[in-house]
Amino acid sequence: MKKVVVSTGGGDAPGLNAVIYAVVHACYRRGWEVYGSRSGYGGFLDIDEMIRLTPRDVEGIYAIGGTILGSSSKGSPFAKPIQNLAGEVQLVDMSEKIMKNYRRMGFDCHIVIGGDGSLQIAQRFSQMGMHVIGVPKTIDNDLPVTERTFGFDTAVSTATNALDKLHSTAKSHDRVMVVEVMGRDSGWIALYSGISGGADVILIPEIPFDLDSVCSKIADNELREKHYSIVVVAEGAAAKGGEVINKGRELGREDVVLGGVGEWVASEIRERTEKDTRSLVLGHLQRGGSPTTFDRLLALRFGAAAVRLVEEDMHGQMVALVSSRMVSVPLEDVVTGRKKVDLNSDKIITARDIGICFGD
Amino acid sequence: MKKVVVSTGGGDAPGLNAVIYAVVHACYRRGWEVYGSRSGYGGFLDIDEMIRLTPRDVEGIYAIGGTILGSSSKGSPFAKPIQNLAGEVQLVDMSEKIMKNYRRMGFDCHIVIGGDGSLQIAQRFSQMGMHVIGVPKTIDNDLPVTERTFGFDTAVSTATNALDKLHSTAKSHDRVMVVEVMGRDSGWIALYSGISGGADVILIPEIPFDLDSVCSKIADNELREKHYSIVVVAEGAAAKGGEVINKGRELGREDVVLGGVGEWVASEIRERTEKDTRSLVLGHLQRGGSPTTFDRLLALRFGAAAVRLVEEDMHGQMVALVSSRMVSVPLEDVVTGRKKVDLNSDKIITARDIGICFGD
Amino acid sequence: MKKVVVSTGGGDAPGLNAVIYAVVHACYRRGWEVYGSRSGYGGFLDIDEMIRLTPRDVEGIYAIGGTILGSSSKGSPFAKPIQNLAGEVQLVDMSEKIMKNYRRMGFDCHIVIGGDGSLQIAQRFSQMGMHVIGVPKTIDNDLPVTERTFGFDTAVSTATNALDKLHSTAKSHDRVMVVEVMGRDSGWIALYSGISGGADVILIPEIPFDLDSVCSKIADNELREKHYSIVVVAEGAAAKGGEVINKGRELGREDVVLGGVGEWVASEIRERTEKDTRSLVLGHLQRGGSPTTFDRLLALRFGAAAVRLVEEDMHGQMVALVSSRMVSVPLEDVVTGRKKVDLNSDKIITARDIGICFGD
Amino acid sequence: MKKVVVSTGGGDAPGLNAVIYAVVHACYRRGWEVYGSRSGYGGFLDIDEMIRLTPRDVEGIYAIGGTILGSSSKGSPFAKPIQNLAGEVQLVDMSEKIMKNYRRMGFDCHIVIGGDGSLQIAQRFSQMGMHVIGVPKTIDNDLPVTERTFGFDTAVSTATNALDKLHSTAKSHDRVMVVEVMGRDSGWIALYSGISGGADVILIPEIPFDLDSVCSKIADNELREKHYSIVVVAEGAAAKGGEVINKGRELGREDVVLGGVGEWVASEIRERTEKDTRSLVLGHLQRGGSPTTFDRLLALRFGAAAVRLVEEDMHGQMVALVSSRMVSVPLEDVVTGRKKVDLNSDKIITARDIGICFGD
Repeated sequence: MKKVVVSTGGGDAPGLNAVIYAVVHACYRRGWEVYGSRSGYGGFLDIDEMIRLTPRDVEGIYAIGGTILGSSSKGSPFAKPIQNLAGEVQLVDMSEKIMKNYRRMGFDCHIVIGGDGSLQIAQRFSQMGMHVIGVPKTIDNDLPVTERTFGFDTAVSTATNALDKLHSTAKSHDRVMVVEVMGRDSGWIALYSGISGGADVILIPEIPFDLDSVCSKIADNELREKHYSIVVVAEGAAAKGGEVINKGRELGREDVVLGGVGEWVASEIRERTEKDTRSLVLGHLQRGGSPTTFDRLLALRFGAAAVRLVEEDMHGQMVALVSSRMVSVPLEDVVTGRKKVDLNSDKIITARDIGICFGD
Repeated sequence: MKKVVVSTGGGDAPGLNAVIYAVVHACYRRGWEVYGSRSGYGGFLDIDEMIRLTPRDVEGIYAIGGTILGSSSKGSPFAKPIQNLAGEVQLVDMSEKIMKNYRRMGFDCHIVIGGDGSLQIAQRFSQMGMHVIGVPKTIDNDLPVTERTFGFDTAVSTATNALDKLHSTAKSHDRVMVVEVMGRDSGWIALYSGISGGADVILIPEIPFDLDSVCSKIADNELREKHYSIVVVAEGAAAKGGEVINKGRELGREDVVLGGVGEWVASEIRERTEKDTRSLVLGHLQRGGSPTTFDRLLALRFGAAAVRLVEEDMHGQMVALVSSRMVSVPLEDVVTGRKKVDLNSDKIITARDIGICFGD
Repeated sequence: MKKVVVSTGGGDAPGLNAVIYAVVHACYRRGWEVYGSRSGYGGFLDIDEMIRLTPRDVEGIYAIGGTILGSSSKGSPFAKPIQNLAGEVQLVDMSEKIMKNYRRMGFDCHIVIGGDGSLQIAQRFSQMGMHVIGVPKTIDNDLPVTERTFGFDTAVSTATNALDKLHSTAKSHDRVMVVEVMGRDSGWIALYSGISGGADVILIPEIPFDLDSVCSKIADNELREKHYSIVVVAEGAAAKGGEVINKGRELGREDVVLGGVGEWVASEIRERTEKDTRSLVLGHLQRGGSPTTFDRLLALRFGAAAVRLVEEDMHGQMVALVSSRMVSVPLEDVVTGRKKVDLNSDKIITARDIGICFGD
Repeated sequence: MKKVVVSTGGGDAPGLNAVIYAVVHACYRRGWEVYGSRSGYGGFLDIDEMIRLTPRDVEGIYAIGGTILGSSSKGSPFAKPIQNLAGEVQLVDMSEKIMKNYRRMGFDCHIVIGGDGSLQIAQRFSQMGMHVIGVPKTIDNDLPVTERTFGFDTAVSTATNALDKLHSTAKSHDRVMVVEVMGRDSGWIALYSGISGGADVILIPEIPFDLDSVCSKIADNELREKHYSIVVVAEGAAAKGGEVINKGRELGREDVVLGGVGEWVASEIRERTEKDTRSLVLGHLQRGGSPTTFDRLLALRFGAAAVRLVEEDMHGQMVALVSSRMVSVPLEDVVTGRKKVDLNSDKIITARDIGICFGD
């Protein structure tokens, strides 16, 4: 009999609940006990936040977005911002307390579902003696060690669905529609949704863009009697020479979350082409909703694989998808770099072949 | 045998194509000829823009957003902006030319699908002798003469679907999500989607809001251990005393299309409650996509009813839905006021009963 | 302070949970207590089946199909099939026990959400002294006293969505697709989904059909170079002369739930036209899933209106939608007849105008 | 400049149009001409069935199910059933005529999108001198040479979506729902949708099932207070000892397309467990509808890769996905066996871990 605890950390991604579902069922099937720690490490700091999980508690959650455990997005337990009596905020290291409670509660393993930040923290606990298994999470699909992460297919589907909707309105009004999607460091969501959603232009961080090139694609469409264009922009895309960032700074617009690169690209296109140009930021829509079938299956596989590692007394490991198989890699090998879009991949070539312009 | 022409004008709404579909089929069934005029009155000015429509041309379009005829959103034919040789833009009255071509082409009737602007123009042509039947269109559902307009149910569904997606992410991160929906003059979309999508707060033009009231609802949620809130804001909602507009002006933000009332409400909530607050503008997503079943049926009924009016040689009339029946009203009675949300309706009462705050 | 109990009975319909949601919130807002009785009257017979409901218990359920309370589909409490010690099943009248417990628990009112069977039972309890408010439920939209019932729009949407999917495959293979939808006594679902989903033929109980007429529509399509056809059949549709039922009996197929009228129509079309013809029964898909925006709003309005009636100490009443308003009608007036499709309605006329054949 | 013709054969799969879209755009971008042959080889037999394809002709089709070219499902061109004057049907070899017209029209290559039957025919034409590139198509994902085929993800999504809908109704009524999905030879769709859709039991051709085992899973659910169960059955699943087929034969039910294994399993469960048990056949719903994002991307990649092979003057090859990359394999290596579900794969293990029973 083992006693396992599971937690979720970082920004949410559709599929988190499916991982929890698989963990609970796979433990239950082995006759183990499972607990969930609320808000990341919350359950290790406050016993009320540590909840028993049975199959009944997780009924149907594989189909639901978000995480039933809540997420720890604020601060690391190694430097938690805590207000003292004088009202000042201090960073306090809670790690010893967490370790003490981890031991006192008699857990055999802690399954941590999180992004690279959360996994690094988990690695530190691993070094302190906690038995940790990591499950990678990033909606952007940009973790280097795993081929795919859950949530990505759902985010791409939401973005593609939005592009489908915008086609009809863009076409009816001879408009240019600029859609900003997630992807601060990599262009995966922009690339996949742009190809699948019939974009004319896709701008990604991996390819600094030239607005002249973008506008000439739009002009080219006009010549071919296609009077509307769809432009997909990853939030981290930047013009050659970094115009965007400067422009943003100039306007003192750091606080304006919505006034990002998409809006700027739209205003430039409007000015240069005199086409009626509108922009839209998909934002949090991409993180929400019921996970796609693809993501459910992937997340369930990750969760079940994590429990199998616990069974084999493997610790300090992360589950990963390599060559379409579930494998484990040491947590210490989780590099923090980003998996970039390979510019020679056949997806980029396909995109160019079907007439998509990358602004280069 | 009659010869009918159909056109679409103004902003698009899901269901336009379904009206066209019904018009074409209902004419075809009577052995009549149907033509479509592209870009509003474009086909009356340029014969290449006047296309023959048969059932085959409209196959399957009842399920597709936008309008296959394109829309005239630029200028009235009574004052069309045209560039002369010197490069100056002059407003030219094209109405005589249109009337001449209408007669020359031998049409018996022109079915105009459009908003109040387009219908007023149609009324002027009616006075000049054109046989006109109007089909009302407004995605905002705010035309006074008809109980419902097509496109509205689809827009509400899109907004509700977005709210569903945002719930999971808001809940996982204890956030306040502010969603701005369409509705410059009336709060129909905000009200319907807010109720159906589980909003905590709905802000509509009909009820000037007080941010203290909004924030106290959010605080109330906290007390009830509900650590997230969803706020739906119609783009035309305004704070008591009109703070929004002033604030917008102050910041010199007229150019920022996306920085509307939703963003402002979010920033105020963030400041006052210290909750992590995000905003999102649904924008054109609400105009796109396949019409819902409800809108398809309504649009098909409007289209078929228009043809029946042509058959009965009724002219200068508009089709309307009154007491769930298709009726006709004189085009001259199409008032330009807006149908506001009735604050005593049971929908408002229902909203309050299920705990929704209107900021009053 | 009042103490209210709510229950659901009969076949499920999307929106049941939304009614419960509104009831709980509207009571909570008035400072009342609400309970839910599981499996219809289960909570009145077994205290463990009577559960306290708070806003927290119903969080998010307005968007979920089914009913959290479970449904009583087996037998009336006035004649409940109960197995005695000898293993024989006897019908026992539990009504006195239910009344006794209703009084002992101190309820002020019982809100019954159910079809005409459940409402008639409620009416009998009302006569025995129970304070009862009825909320009508029928996915078929065929209750005479209310213009609309929740669940219907969702069922129609599911059916229309299926028709959308079948179009592409029917067209690619020059096939006839026959789709059987719900509607034992009335053709509402078939009519609405058939019009919205581009059916060529719609067969409903209100219009006995002639297969020659159906096949001649299919032949007509061929002539117009449309080599595929979509036929929607309500489960209660019958050929002129009642061939279907006889045919079914002949084959001794009463046990074969799926081998209904749709399959028979398909086999006849296959034989007569030599077209590749397939059939499909949508069945329970139509009862499931998240309610549409339309149904959520309607169900929430019904629930809140029921609580307002409780507040006004109205009893023995049913909530109904009349002229788009929530009204109340005496439970004793709930007639058991079915609201049939009006053959002169503009929906039927629209259907014919867009070329749909009813087989007459 | 090259001149390419594309055709589609066999049962349809969502994504066929996306392949055509990519072929047309990729050829157009190279300055080539593209034609589409209707109904498989129809365009080679009747010049009216050979249509020119430009980007304009394929606008938006990547998002649409079916195939704009129609499919050849009837007979091989090497043995085409043709009626002679006496009304007798004879099998005629049309291959010489096709080759003659292929040469006369001056095509450089024929891109054949089809299943193993169509690809074998293509291989025979290849041996006769036609330049052929194959694109594999099977909605069942059971072609051995390629990791994935387009259409599969969409079919799985449709099935999963149906399971989602059935959960609420099954749960509300304490029912067993049996859902029959596609998969005559392999259980891919059943496995993927069953895992993602929360099935309790999955029956696939690869694992002969024992109804006692199925019923004991359902009884087990009851013990755990889960009073409903979802059973997914691939159409080719068979009981140990082949009961199904015999039972089917016994009843003389070969003609009843819908009365398959699902219905039989349901009736057995009903009898053995006395639970209210219903069955549903998803059938053609799984072939229809807009392809998912995943399938669109995959199909576009296949299409573009096919054109790159044409560019490199590779012939007699088929595009395949191997190790997530587009590669080419000789058409003659296209084996006709089926890719079966690997019973040791982590998907099966995951399924068992989350409590799914395979009836073994």
